[in-house]
Amino acid sequence: MISIIHIFNIKRDAFRKLSFFIAQVKYMRMYDIIERKRDGLELTDDEIYYFVNGCTTGEIPDYQTAALLMAIFLNGMSDAEVQTLTFAMRDSGDVADLSGIEGMTVDKHSTGGVGDKTTMIVVPMAAAVGCKVVKMSGRGLGHTGGTVDKLESIPGFCSELTHEEVIDTVNRVGACMIGHNSEFAPADRVMYDLRDVTATVESLPLIASSIMSKKLACSNDSILLDVKFGSGALMQDLSDAVSLASEMVKLGKSAGRKTAAVLTSMEDPLGYSVGNTLEVIEAVRVLKGEQKGDLYEISIELCAYMAHLTSGLPLEECRRLSVESIDNGTAFEKFKEIVHAQGGDERYLDDTSLFEDTAFHSEIRAERFGYIAAMDTHLIGQASMILGAGRAKIDDEIDHAAGIVFEKKTGDYVSPGEVIAVIYTNDENTLYEAAFTIDTAIMYSEDPPPASPLIYDVIK
Amino acid sequence: MISIIHIFNIKRDAFRKLSFFIAQVKYMRMYDIIERKRDGLELTDDEIYYFVNGCTTGEIPDYQTAALLMAIFLNGMSDAEVQTLTFAMRDSGDVADLSGIEGMTVDKHSTGGVGDKTTMIVVPMAAAVGCKVVKMSGRGLGHTGGTVDKLESIPGFCSELTHEEVIDTVNRVGACMIGHNSEFAPADRVMYDLRDVTATVESLPLIASSIMSKKLACSNDSILLDVKFGSGALMQDLSDAVSLASEMVKLGKSAGRKTAAVLTSMEDPLGYSVGNTLEVIEAVRVLKGEQKGDLYEISIELCAYMAHLTSGLPLEECRRLSVESIDNGTAFEKFKEIVHAQGGDERYLDDTSLFEDTAFHSEIRAERFGYIAAMDTHLIGQASMILGAGRAKIDDEIDHAAGIVFEKKTGDYVSPGEVIAVIYTNDENTLYEAAFTIDTAIMYSEDPPPASPLIYDVIK
Repeated sequence: MISIIHIFNIKRDAFRKLSFFIAQVKYMRMYDIIERKRDGLELTDDEIYYFVNGCTTGEIPDYQTAALLMAIFLNGMSDAEVQTLTFAMRDSGDVADLSGIEGMTVDKHSTGGVGDKTTMIVVPMAAAVGCKVVKMSGRGLGHTGGTVDKLESIPGFCSELTHEEVIDTVNRVGACMIGHNSEFAPADRVMYDLRDVTATVESLPLIASSIMSKKLACSNDSILLDVKFGSGALMQDLSDAVSLASEMVKLGKSAGRKTAAVLTSMEDPLGYSVGNTLEVIEAVRVLKGEQKGDLYEISIELCAYMAHLTSGLPLEECRRLSVESIDNGTAFEKFKEIVHAQGGDERYLDDTSLFEDTAFHSEIRAERFGYIAAMDTHLIGQASMILGAGRAKIDDEIDHAAGIVFEKKTGDYVSPGEVIAVIYTNDENTLYEAAFTIDTAIMYSEDPPPASPLIYDVIK
Repeated sequence: MISIIHIFNIKRDAFRKLSFFIAQVKYMRMYDIIERKRDGLELTDDEIYYFVNGCTTGEIPDYQTAALLMAIFLNGMSDAEVQTLTFAMRDSGDVADLSGIEGMTVDKHSTGGVGDKTTMIVVPMAAAVGCKVVKMSGRGLGHTGGTVDKLESIPGFCSELTHEEVIDTVNRVGACMIGHNSEFAPADRVMYDLRDVTATVESLPLIASSIMSKKLACSNDSILLDVKFGSGALMQDLSDAVSLASEMVKLGKSAGRKTAAVLTSMEDPLGYSVGNTLEVIEAVRVLKGEQKGDLYEISIELCAYMAHLTSGLPLEECRRLSVESIDNGTAFEKFKEIVHAQGGDERYLDDTSLFEDTAFHSEIRAERFGYIAAMDTHLIGQASMILGAGRAKIDDEIDHAAGIVFEKKTGDYVSPGEVIAVIYTNDENTLYEAAFTIDTAIMYSEDPPPASPLIYDVIK
C-alpha cells in the first residue's frame, strides 16, 4: 500500500472567505426556526415566511409545526413577529379585490360566543345608514354557533356567492353575508387544525394572526372587532381580551385599515335565544324594534362604530342614525333586501311563525326563590349543541329549529315553578341531558348580582 | 304540529351522582395531557403511561407527541414525573432477564463524545477484576462515534448475539459487547426520532429518561455512568452535566440498581485517535500498558468504580486491582477472549499492523509558535465524519480505517512546521475540507492553558 503524504499549509484567508460565503447563503431549516423560538429569540421575517409557506404547501411536517406552535404558545411573539406572521398568512392565499364596490366597505368580526346574533342585526343596520359591508362568517362548532348556519335557517338562503355576485349584491343592496372563502389564508386552516389538537389555541399571537389574516384577505376598508370575554368566550378574562383587541387593532392599522375593537361580555348568552332559527326570529324582533335590552343596545353601538369608522361622522351622530334605522324600519327592510338578494324567502322574516317548529318543547323551572347570579355560557352553548342546534364534529348535521329560549336572565328574581327557559328539539332523547346541563349552568344568590356594563372598553 | 310539554323538576341528587360517576371513569385524552404540561402542571402516573403507550403503539399522532415534548422541554418535569416516564419507557418493550449469569453484573454508559474508546478498554478490565458485564452500545451518528462501529473494525467481530449467547458468553469470559436491542424501550426510539427533528433533544428530563429506560431494560445489577461535558458533549456546561448525572443516579437507585456517575470533560478528544480502527489500535495500546495519559487514567477510574459498585470493596483497593489488570496483562488477554468469543480475529489485536491502512494520509502542521489552548471537539468529530469515519445520516456507510491521530493536544507547545495531527482517508476529495475543519477547531495562546482535572465530580 502506498501512502501519499500531503503537506497542508492552511490558507487562512481562503478559509475565512469560504466561511463568509457559506454564511451568506440563506440555507433555512425548520429545525433552526423551532430552536430559536424555543430559546425565546425573535424570528426574522424570512423565517416566518419560510414557515408559513412550508405549512401551506405541506413541505413542513405537522410535528415540526406543532413543536413551533407550542414554543410560540409558551415563549410568545413580539409585535413585529405577529405582524409578519399575519401578513404571511394573508399572503398564503387569495386576497379579495373589492375595488368594484362603490363607497367605503366595512367588516365586523366577533370573536365568537353563545347566542351572538348581532351580525344579522348589525349588517343590515350598517347598510341602512350607508355603509357597504362584505361580511364573511363561519359555521358553528362546539359550544359556539355560526352566522352562516343561522342564516341558512331561512329557506332558499345561499351563503356561497361568486366574487362577481358579491360585488353586484353589495353595489345593489349595500351588504352581503357569506361563508368563509377557503382560498383566503389557507395557512390558517393548516395551523388552526393543528392548534385544535395540540392545546395551542389560546395563544394571543396565534389568535390575533389567525383572525386578522382572514380579515385582511377580505380587503374591507374598515374593520370593527367585537372581542368577547367571559365563560362563553375564547378569552376568559377582560385583561386578556384587552391585550388581544389591542394587538388586532395594531395589526389592522399596520395594514392601512381603519380598525377599532369593542370589548363585550360573554358571561350571559346575548339576548334570549340560542339556536339557529330561534336566533333569526330574535334578530327580526330587534330589527323591527320589538325587543330592546342588551342585544338591541350592543347592536346600536356596533353599528354606530361601523358607521363612525367608515364615514368619519361623530360617534354620537352615528349612534342617532343607528337608532333611527330601527325606528323608521329601514334596517329591517335592508335585512329583507339582503336575504332576497341571496335567494332567501323574505316572507319568513315578515311572519316568523312560518318557520318550522320542533316536535318537543320542555320547560326548565326554578326550584327556589332567589336571583339568577350568573350563567355558565359555555355549558349553555353545549346544551344547545346537545339539542341538535350545533356540531360536535365539523361534518355533523344540525337541526336548524332546535335550541333554547330564556325567559329569565342574570339579575332576574325567580320563584319556585317559574319558567327560566324553554328548550326546543326534534330528538326527545336529548331533553334530559340538555335540561341537566342548563340547570348546572345557572347559579343563584340571595342578593341581586351587581349590574355589569354592555361594553367594557373600546380600543381605537 | 303537536308540542309535548315536559315539566322538569331537576333531580339534583341524581345529577350529582351522575357527575361523580363520570369523573370516576378514566377518560384520558392526549389533548388534556399536553394542556396540563403546557400550563406547568405535574402529570400523573396514569397520564405518563397513557402517553408512552400511545407513542409506542402509534395511536398518538406525531404532532401531539411533538407538542408535548416541546412543553416538557420548556416547562420541565418533577423528579417523580421523570421517574414514571423512565419506567414507562422501560416497560414499553422487553426487559432482559440476566438471572442466568452467575455473579453481579455491571453496566457502563457514556453520554457520548469524540474519540471515546473507553468501553473497549474498561469492559475487559472490569471482567479481568471479576465483574460480569453486559454492555450494549450504539453506532456513530453525526460528530460522535459508536463502540459497535469501532469493534466491527476487527474482522469477524459480531455485535449481534442472541439472549442465550449473551448469557453463555458472559458466564464463560465475563463480558460481552453488543449492539442495542431494538426490543428494549421502543418508546424511546419513537420519541428520540421526533426530538431529533423538533429541537427537543437537549432537555434534562428527556435525556435522563431516554438513557436510563434503556439501561434499566438491560437489567445489570449496577450502572456506572460517565457523564461528559464540554464542546464535544451533549451537555456544554459542568452544572448541566451535574444535574443530568444526579437525575440519572436517582433514577437508577429508584429502580433498585447500584448507580454512580463520574463527570468527565469532553473539551479535548479522549486519547489521541478519532476513527474506528484507529481507536481499536489505541485501546490495545492502553490495554497492553504501552500508553499512559488521560485515556489510561480515566479507564483506571471507570474500572475502579465499576468494581467498587459490584464488589463493595474499598475504592482504593479497586483502583489497585484495575492498575494491576493492565500491568499483569490480564485485561488485554480478556479483551482478546471477548473478541474471540464474539467471532473476531484476535490476531489483529496482537499485531495491529494487520489492520488495513487508508490510501491517503495528510499531516496538519502548526503555522506558529504557541500553546494549544483549546480544541473544539465537536468540529474534530465532524472532521472525522467528513473523512469517512462517521455517518451524517443513519444509513450512511462508514470507512473503518478513516480518522485522525493527534500528535499534539491541549497544553502542548508547538513550533511552526510541527505535526499536530495526521488524517487518514480513502477519499482524497475529503482531505481539504477535513484539514480546514481541524485547523479551525484548534485555538492557540501565548501562555500555557490551565491544567484541568480528568474527573470533575462523582455523584453516588
